[in-house]
This record gives sequence, structure tokens and C-alpha cells, in this order.
Amino acid sequence: MFRARHLLGIEPLHPTEITTLLDLAESYVDLNRRTVKHSDALEGMTQINMFFENSTRTQSSFELAGKRLGADVMNMSMQTSSVKKGETLIDTALTLNAMHPDLLVVRHSASGAVDLLAQKVNCAVINAGDGRHEHPTQALLDALTIRRAKGRLHRLTVAICGDIAHSRVARSNLLLLGKMESRLRLIGPATLMPAGARDWGCEVYEDMREGLRGADVVMMLRLQRERMDGGFIPSEREYYHRWGLDAEKLALAADDAIVMHPGPMNRGVEIDGTIADDINRSVIQDQVEMGVAVRMAAMDLLARNLRAERGSRASEALA
Amino acid sequence: MFRARHLLGIEPLHPTEITTLLDLAESYVDLNRRTVKHSDALEGMTQINMFFENSTRTQSSFELAGKRLGADVMNMSMQTSSVKKGETLIDTALTLNAMHPDLLVVRHSASGAVDLLAQKVNCAVINAGDGRHEHPTQALLDALTIRRAKGRLHRLTVAICGDIAHSRVARSNLLLLGKMESRLRLIGPATLMPAGARDWGCEVYEDMREGLRGADVVMMLRLQRERMDGGFIPSEREYYHRWGLDAEKLALAADDAIVMHPGPMNRGVEIDGTIADDINRSVIQDQVEMGVAVRMAAMDLLARNLRAERGSRASEALA
Amino acid sequence: MFRARHLLGIEPLHPTEITTLLDLAESYVDLNRRTVKHSDALEGMTQINMFFENSTRTQSSFELAGKRLGADVMNMSMQTSSVKKGETLIDTALTLNAMHPDLLVVRHSASGAVDLLAQKVNCAVINAGDGRHEHPTQALLDALTIRRAKGRLHRLTVAICGDIAHSRVARSNLLLLGKMESRLRLIGPATLMPAGARDWGCEVYEDMREGLRGADVVMMLRLQRERMDGGFIPSEREYYHRWGLDAEKLALAADDAIVMHPGPMNRGVEIDGTIADDINRSVIQDQVEMGVAVRMAAMDLLARNLRAERGSRASEALA
Repeated sequence: MFRARHLLGIEPLHPTEITTLLDLAESYVDLNRRTVKHSDALEGMTQINMFFENSTRTQSSFELAGKRLGADVMNMSMQTSSVKKGETLIDTALTLNAMHPDLLVVRHSASGAVDLLAQKVNCAVINAGDGRHEHPTQALLDALTIRRAKGRLHRLTVAICGDIAHSRVARSNLLLLGKMESRLRLIGPATLMPAGARDWGCEVYEDMREGLRGADVVMMLRLQRERMDGGFIPSEREYYHRWGLDAEKLALAADDAIVMHPGPMNRGVEIDGTIADDINRSVIQDQVEMGVAVRMAAMDLLARNLRAERGSRASEALA
Repeated sequence: MFRARHLLGIEPLHPTEITTLLDLAESYVDLNRRTVKHSDALEGMTQINMFFENSTRTQSSFELAGKRLGADVMNMSMQTSSVKKGETLIDTALTLNAMHPDLLVVRHSASGAVDLLAQKVNCAVINAGDGRHEHPTQALLDALTIRRAKGRLHRLTVAICGDIAHSRVARSNLLLLGKMESRLRLIGPATLMPAGARDWGCEVYEDMREGLRGADVVMMLRLQRERMDGGFIPSEREYYHRWGLDAEKLALAADDAIVMHPGPMNRGVEIDGTIADDINRSVIQDQVEMGVAVRMAAMDLLARNLRAERGSRASEALA
Repeated sequence: MFRARHLLGIEPLHPTEITTLLDLAESYVDLNRRTVKHSDALEGMTQINMFFENSTRTQSSFELAGKRLGADVMNMSMQTSSVKKGETLIDTALTLNAMHPDLLVVRHSASGAVDLLAQKVNCAVINAGDGRHEHPTQALLDALTIRRAKGRLHRLTVAICGDIAHSRVARSNLLLLGKMESRLRLIGPATLMPAGARDWGCEVYEDMREGLRGADVVMMLRLQRERMDGGFIPSEREYYHRWGLDAEKLALAADDAIVMHPGPMNRGVEIDGTIADDINRSVIQDQVEMGVAVRMAAMDLLARNLRAERGSRASEALA
């Protein structure tokens, strides 16, 4: 069962909802590789992608997912939009809502902006990343990638390494993997570790060699220089030396440990290029592939709920 | 009957053509709310949106309208196009024409540019705003909104308030409402009132309180700082004090007066936020909704004429 | 027969492959003018346009071609993409590949970049222009235009005039017309003539009057100031005087010579406006029209090969 009206974050999801979504996504993986019209789950529906922050990669993944489900997909480049002319976020939302979209995919630089927007519209909203808050489809695609590589999500030791403080990817993964009963470790410079990280039920390491010991999954994060405001920023060379994933550090993890990265990668900063390309360890391309499948599943489920809600409202009106 | 080849402005339209278009749009309003494939009126046709001036709102409305009618829609971002490489408007038009589009939706900063372009192409052209000249679909969506709220378009007192001189919205509305036998009042600072406004058969007011007295429809305009070249520009605070719509000024209009705004709004400049959000007075969201319906109707009618013209040319060739 | 996996350039094509492609394109010309759903050759397939260099004209032509064949078309604006965030071209390619597109249309400023990318992906790749290297669909559309105007491609005298050194259009045309047994002349300032041009089996002229004498086809190139790095650049006025095509110079060509230009044109720089508009001589609009048809044919043929390859792989897997 998946009952939500929106997909705003991992936090409100029940573990069975996560499993439902991953199972459906699994069924889309193979479908996705074939050159046939994939599904008509979103036939006649309108999906609008509103990216207030640029992300070619994530937007493309949502666009492909929608088109493969038969939706009419419209991209709005919010950088050049009315927002620049002084319109408020709420007015933009109300305007869009009046055009009767069915699915709104939103990325915004402010934490909480997508939740706020969701309260103002009649359609289903998917959070495609808001500030440092959540990025639920990224956590779901990571989970699907892990489940396919490891056969399960529970009782795994997952190490998330790098700039935890600025990362909504880390936050959503933490929430999801916690719900699925994995053991979590956070590794990174103290200055890039959020205050209170130790209270979240995960182990916290500054020394990467300690943190990687015996890990089943090594999830590297992108060094997000653009999100850092002041504070200590290590040089790229120093960062790579201490927290970059290379063969020597990876040798400390489990023999069959897999390596993940949400992309785009800074080769030679947070990860060594050879490891990124090693098809025995790296599942980085799988993550991208699962991204399309997970987004197809999420939009499919939300569309079903939307149809059910509209149907029951229509019946009430007739009764 | 609607006989036009293009929709370049309100000026050349006969009142019965306007009524035909609004009636068809009305039939699209409900269709538009449902999550089914809405119509195949433009099936197999190509619609190209050429916006030489950015307008996320208007472009989205046209894009959705086209997709809901089954067209292949292509957006051309003219800011980054050959125009920059020194190509003339006519060459751009001829190039596009050679690609055999069916519908061309054009916005341009120069008054008359869309008419010029329409003379060079074989397809149907819709003016999505040209300089200070016309913005016909805006006037049509405003008319549909008024007709739905008031039950008629004739014998209404409509006050258009604000920067009349720079507004193609005002101009197209003036033409349309004049044809439909409404009484028109223009309200705004003398510096933002076009020379000769008094000769157009409408009443002109500088004092907003006088102008609003007994009005059935209050249409606020956006303060277009970007279109003002020199001249007296009041401060935002002063502008709001004298010409901004607030509760006290609105109380002078008819008890059941409706409030309109073409968007995007400057809250606290030309309109008070509380009034914009008052669902008993404001029809601002309805305007956006009617926008999609009116554009669907306009493209549907132009496509019918295009098909008829091509059919009769084909018969002649056979005879 | 057309056996290629990719369309990366004219160089690897056999003359019969070129003829196959032009014949198929010919069948799309009329189809293209009608307002019906044109074909379902790419039904269920995903085409991604990756333009690292802006080109509204070429991108639009590919987008329309794909949509008219029923493909899901996605434009990626690479200027604002991960490339900016430090991602390598290969990582971008691998990421896209993991999303399972079927056709990738790529323009890049570096010669050879598209070939490199094609080696990394499973889908079919079309070169939409790479540096000074090749622009195969431009040469094919030029060939189709010439064949329709002249009835043949062999034994014609074709003069290519202008900035030969910086032009991938010239290079691809040279290769194609050479394979089809036309006589080629290159005309332009010595500083804009590539070293070794005389060794390519074509005549080289600095004096335009000499070079044009008796030519059947006069192909003007755009003066690409943006691609010139230093070196002698003539003033526009001087350039026009010596190498701009005007009535007096054109009179030296064959009586039924046709005039071509890949666009966008600099009227009054490389070509006189009156000649560009002369429907008895200029086939410039035909080139644009043939562009859509040639791109439809190229994508259709590549899609057939892709389907065949996948089918035979699937049969092997079953055997």
C-alpha cells in the first residue's frame, strides 16, 4: 500500500510504502530497457517540472520517466520566470495550479519550500530536492540499487562519506536506511558533519579508514562547494588525501562492498576515477538507471491515488 | 463563424467571431479539468512557440493548450538563437516556415513584428503579445472570465487601472470590451495614460476613487518598470497609495464587483495581497484557468480553417 | 543498404549508403508537408538532443524530425548542465547511456568529441556538428537539395565559397560531393583556406570571379567570426567586395546555377539579400525543408539497425 498524496520526503513514509514503491520500480527496470511504448499509466496527465535550481541530470530523469509513462511533460525554467519579476512562490504555485497539472515535480534551494507549495495545490507534488532538507527519489533509487546488488536492505553496514552537513541526499538516505534497519555510519570532516549527528542513531567518524572497516556499502557524496557558506573548506588535494575514496581505503571495507555516488562526480576529489569505473565495485551507472525506474514508480503510484481521490469525489457529488 | 487565418489582434475580429471563440473555450473549461486525453483537434500538427521576450506564464499556457489538443509542441528560445548571430526576423520566419509548422505562437518586443512575420509564412500565426500593440488571447481570457462571473459582456462598467500607456493588455481589452458594448474607464497617473486616450470613447480618470465608483469589473495592470523609458515614475509606495487597489478604494465599486489582474502581481504595489486572495472578489486564478481554455479554442479554430484551406486547395488541384 | 550503427560523418559512408539515405529522405519530403501524424518509425523510442554549442536551427530540425516520427524527444541544455559542475564528457555520456536512450544527437565544439562519446554508449549517435570536423546531416541535406534541383549529383561543378578553414559544413560537403563524383572548387581568402586544400583533389581559388566561372552550384558559407582565433580577418565591407555573392559575380556561373547557404545568413556580408530571395536561383529555403526530411531518414535508418541488432541479440540469448 502507498497512500500518500505527495512525495515530499522519506520521513513520512512507512517501510511497507517504501517496499511497495521499490517493488513497482523493479517491474519498470526491464520495461525501461526495451524500445516499446512502455506504459500508459500517465496517459492524458500533465507533468510539470519546476526547477528553481538547475539540475540537468535529475530533471532529465523525471522527464524521461514521465514520457515513458505517456504523460504530457512540460519543463518550466524558473530562473527566467515570473519569479524574477517579483512574483511570490505562492502566487507561482497558484498560477500553475489553475492550469490543472496532475503532477508537479519541484526543486528549490530553500528547505521546506516544496512542502509549502504542496499545501497550495490540488495536484500531486514530488520533491526533487529542497535545500538541505530531503531528496526522496534519490534515496529510493539508492535503496533499489543496494537491494538489487545485495539482495536485501536490512542488516547492512552502510557508510555515507563526505559533506554530510550540506547534503539532502545524505539526510534522505539516513531516514530511509534507518527505517529499513540498516546500520549507518557517517564519515567526514568535523566541519562538514551536522551538529547532533551522533544523536541520530548512527556512528560518526572523522577518520575514513576507521569508518570504512567492514562496510557493505560505501556511498560517496559530492563536495558541494556551492552550498558552503564560510567555515573551513579543505583544499581539494587535502580533501582527497583524507576523505577521497581510493583503492587503499576501499580495501578496508567488506570484500564485496559496493561503491555509490549520486553524481555528478568530481574525479580525483571525492573519488578515484579507477574505482568509479570498476564494474566489479561501482554501481554508479546502476543508480542512474534505477533513477528512471524509481521515478516512474513514484509517479505511477501518485497518479493512481489521484485518480482514486477524484473518482470518489465524483461519486460523492453524484450521491 | 470564425474566418480568420491568423489571430493577430482583437481589432480585426467581428463581435460574432469573439462570441464563437468564447463559446468554444467554454466547452474546453471542464474538459480541461479532467485527467483524460482531452481532444485530438491538433493531432499530427506542429505548434512552434517563438518567444523573443521571456514569458514563462504565457508560454506555458500555450504549451499546455497545444499538448492537450494533441499537437507536437516545440519551444524555441529565441534569446539564444540565430537572431543573436545577426539573422533578420524575416529570415528566421522563412526558415521556420520551411520546416512546415501548422501554428506559430509569437511574442516580440516590437509592435507590429508579429503581423510582419505572419505575412511571410504559410501557417497560422497567433500573436502572444507584440510591444505595446496587442495581446489578443489575454483580452479573450479576460472576457471569458468576466462572462462567467457576470453572465454577460455588454452593459458592464469596466475600470482598467494602472499603467495604460505601456500595456498591450489594456489596449486589447479596450478593443474587445468596446466591441461588446461595455462602458470603459481608464484610471492611472497622467504620465502613464496614452495621449489621445480621451478620444477612444472611454472615460479617463487620474483619481482612482472617482474612477472606481460603481464599477462592475476592476482590472488592475502590472506596473511594467521594464517598459518605461524615462518619464515620471512614481515610487512604489506613492503608487500604491494613489493607484494601488486596497479595501477602502474597492468599497467604492459595485457591491458585487470582481477584481482581475493579468499577473505576475506585485503585491503591495498595484494590489493589496488580501484582495488578491479574496475568493469572493478576486477572479485572478480563474483568469489563468480560462487562459488555457481560450488558447485551446483559438488554436482549434485556426487549425480548422487551415485544414479547410488546404482541403480546398487540394480539390482545386484535382479539378 | 545502410549498415552503420552511428552517423558520425560522411567519411565512412559508401556512396550506396548515401543514395539509400537520400532516397528515403525523398519519400519523407511530401509526407512532411501534410498535417497528419507522419510516421511511427520511432514510436516508443527516446531521442536526446545534447547541444554543447547552441544551435536553435539545427536542434529544432532534429526535434521536429523526431517528433514527426513519433519519438519521445528530450532537449538537454548542456550549457547549464553538470558539465559546468566539473563532470567529464565521458561521465555525462555514461550517465545518459544509463537512462537508455535510443538516439543521441550531439553537437560539440571539439572535433572528435562526438566520436569519443559514441564509443561509450549503447545507442545510436548522430553527429550534429563537432568542431571543424564534420556535420554530416548538413552535407546530406545539401546533396538532396542539389539532386532535386539538378536531377543528379555526379558531373556537376560545385563551388564552395568563403571561410573554408573553419567550416565543418565545407568539409562534410567536400567528402560527400567527392564520393558522388562532382567537380569541386574551393574559393576564399588564403587566410581562410586550410593548409593542404590543394591536395584534396579540388581546385582552389582566391579570386571569386575565376572560381565561379561555369559553376552549376554556388554554395556560400557563413563568415564564422566566433570560430576565428587571431589571424587576418577582413572587414565586412572588404569581405563583401571580394567574396560576397552579388549579381555581377553570379553572372559568371552557369545560366541555371543554383545558390545555397547553410544559414543563418549575414545579408550584405557573404551574400547579397536580393540573390538570397531570388526564387529562380536561391534554394536556401529548400535546404531547410530537406533538413527535416534528411534527419527523419537518418534516424529512421539508424533505428532500424538498432532494432535489428537488438532482435538478433535477443535471438542469440534464446538459442
